[in-house]
Amino acid sequence: MLPMVTLAEVARHAQVTAATVSNVLRNPQKVRPATVDRVMAAVRELGYRPNLTARALAEGRTSTLALMLSNISNPFYPEFVLEAEAAARRHGYFLLVCNTDDNPSIARAYLDRIAGTLAAGVIVMNTDVSADELAGIAARGSTLALCMWEGARTSRALPCVTVDYAHAGSLAAEHLAGLGHRRIGALLGEGSGGPQSLRLKGFVDTLAARGIDTEALPAASCRDSIEGGYEAARTLLAAHPRLTALFATNDLMALGAIQAAADCGRHVPHDLSVIGLTNIHLAHQFRPALTTVSFPTASIASIAVALTIDRIEGRKAKRDAYKVPLPELVIRDSTAPAVRTARRG
Amino acid sequence: MLPMVTLAEVARHAQVTAATVSNVLRNPQKVRPATVDRVMAAVRELGYRPNLTARALAEGRTSTLALMLSNISNPFYPEFVLEAEAAARRHGYFLLVCNTDDNPSIARAYLDRIAGTLAAGVIVMNTDVSADELAGIAARGSTLALCMWEGARTSRALPCVTVDYAHAGSLAAEHLAGLGHRRIGALLGEGSGGPQSLRLKGFVDTLAARGIDTEALPAASCRDSIEGGYEAARTLLAAHPRLTALFATNDLMALGAIQAAADCGRHVPHDLSVIGLTNIHLAHQFRPALTTVSFPTASIASIAVALTIDRIEGRKAKRDAYKVPLPELVIRDSTAPAVRTARRG
Repeated sequence: MLPMVTLAEVARHAQVTAATVSNVLRNPQKVRPATVDRVMAAVRELGYRPNLTARALAEGRTSTLALMLSNISNPFYPEFVLEAEAAARRHGYFLLVCNTDDNPSIARAYLDRIAGTLAAGVIVMNTDVSADELAGIAARGSTLALCMWEGARTSRALPCVTVDYAHAGSLAAEHLAGLGHRRIGALLGEGSGGPQSLRLKGFVDTLAARGIDTEALPAASCRDSIEGGYEAARTLLAAHPRLTALFATNDLMALGAIQAAADCGRHVPHDLSVIGLTNIHLAHQFRPALTTVSFPTASIASIAVALTIDRIEGRKAKRDAYKVPLPELVIRDSTAPAVRTARRG
Repeated sequence: MLPMVTLAEVARHAQVTAATVSNVLRNPQKVRPATVDRVMAAVRELGYRPNLTARALAEGRTSTLALMLSNISNPFYPEFVLEAEAAARRHGYFLLVCNTDDNPSIARAYLDRIAGTLAAGVIVMNTDVSADELAGIAARGSTLALCMWEGARTSRALPCVTVDYAHAGSLAAEHLAGLGHRRIGALLGEGSGGPQSLRLKGFVDTLAARGIDTEALPAASCRDSIEGGYEAARTLLAAHPRLTALFATNDLMALGAIQAAADCGRHVPHDLSVIGLTNIHLAHQFRPALTTVSFPTASIASIAVALTIDRIEGRKAKRDAYKVPLPELVIRDSTAPAVRTARRG
């Protein structure tokens, strides 16, 4: 339905050469991560489809990867799936998606069923099953890679492609502190892999380093969903009406917090600044558009796929080949200087 | 992380007997569709997990289904995947998800690769490949079922589980006309399967039957996304400033239209009523919450899975067993009587 987009147009849009686009599509691990992100953004935006890939698939020169995740209804995962599927296809691989619905028994059953048989390799995003147990499965000959795991619970025996969660939290803290906020509340998400504590730790440590008293930082724990953030923000704002800013460890909760603020008669950003983490599509689609810290989703997907395929095909790469770019602050309309808040308060 | 929920609690929540819950989980096609929907809503809401299913999977008494779709980043599909995955699991089947990224070559390659080999049956939601071509693949021995196809392009040779799209459009028209709206614009979505014309036809025919002049109904065509709806609504409202209501053939576009109205200084619903179709989760999560027509997503997923498995296992069922419930109007906060609009205008 869309007109055919050419590689040259992608290059022009991303302000790189056609050779770079081609490189990004074939060997993303050899290109600077920021460039991978820019080119992949252009690929998505223009709807570019490399024909060679479709041909390779049609000719059967393909193998299969599986991507296992806990909860496809969290909108981050479909966005990730789209990137991973495109990355797999660029390598001539299929990607099958397995949703385990936060259930470790289902996750184990999927692994039994697919790892090494239906799929040559499995990228495991969900953490229902422990890293040690996964390492045991890998030791029996299956190619597994962890992805987006949050910190301590990974295993030395398994590679893990993930983002610097603490740094992401730290960027959010810098932003709010820089806007003059001192009375800040936090919403800590309970994700599929447990509490998003690393993100909160990065946030709190940076506030403390800036001389802000974090001993009594008001915080509420909730599911990492719009509804979870809504309820937690209402509770927090009722108990601490003088807060001028809220940090949420996840965009969905931040979007719920904006709605909670509106329902409490507080205007975002004039009466309350709200910042999230991840930069899912909804973050820019919402009104007010959400200030957030962007995870390098396209790079992580490309790298996890490249790493898994390198392992399947017995290739060794330097550690640097799988280096994930740092998260970046994205300022939109949900944060403003605390001064304005104080004046109104 | 969540406390264990029992079947009895699900039954209480759905106001049915435990036997009915059990029936819905095992043989949804034998239960009234409205009851299936109610029970499945309770299952999801409470996070209930039937243990037997996990055990069946772990014991390897399982086979594999595939669900092929065009665009996992449209939030309807993850919601559908979640229901279909749960339905497959209740039958002791795995569900693998294949995202074809709106590319017919990829769709064909997936079918070559999985139909009849990796997966015992494939539920095809995307329409990149023609029904006739799919019928040809089925004729060579693969079990295929179409799902959510929009009308005319299905094939007699293949079963299709879908919703009455024209009726959905008709309900939206009844609602707006009943609120006194006469100057109504329409946003027609270009989905993965082409224009959502049946929905618009149901809408326009019902307006005409209520004596509303639809000859010059202002309409704009756009991609079925928030951004698409936003741009199309801005154009439509600029060209037809006296419109009091907008109908969108898809919730995403309706959400974009609400934002466009806000950016044009028009309040929804006081200055403009907006109604969508589908009832994705975002419809109730947005502010103002979106009035829409709900598709029976859980029923469609259950029925498509049950039908496909019946065919795989060579069972015949009466036609009625696969009857999909009608869509239903869900009134929220984005529609209001036209009278108020007129007073303000």
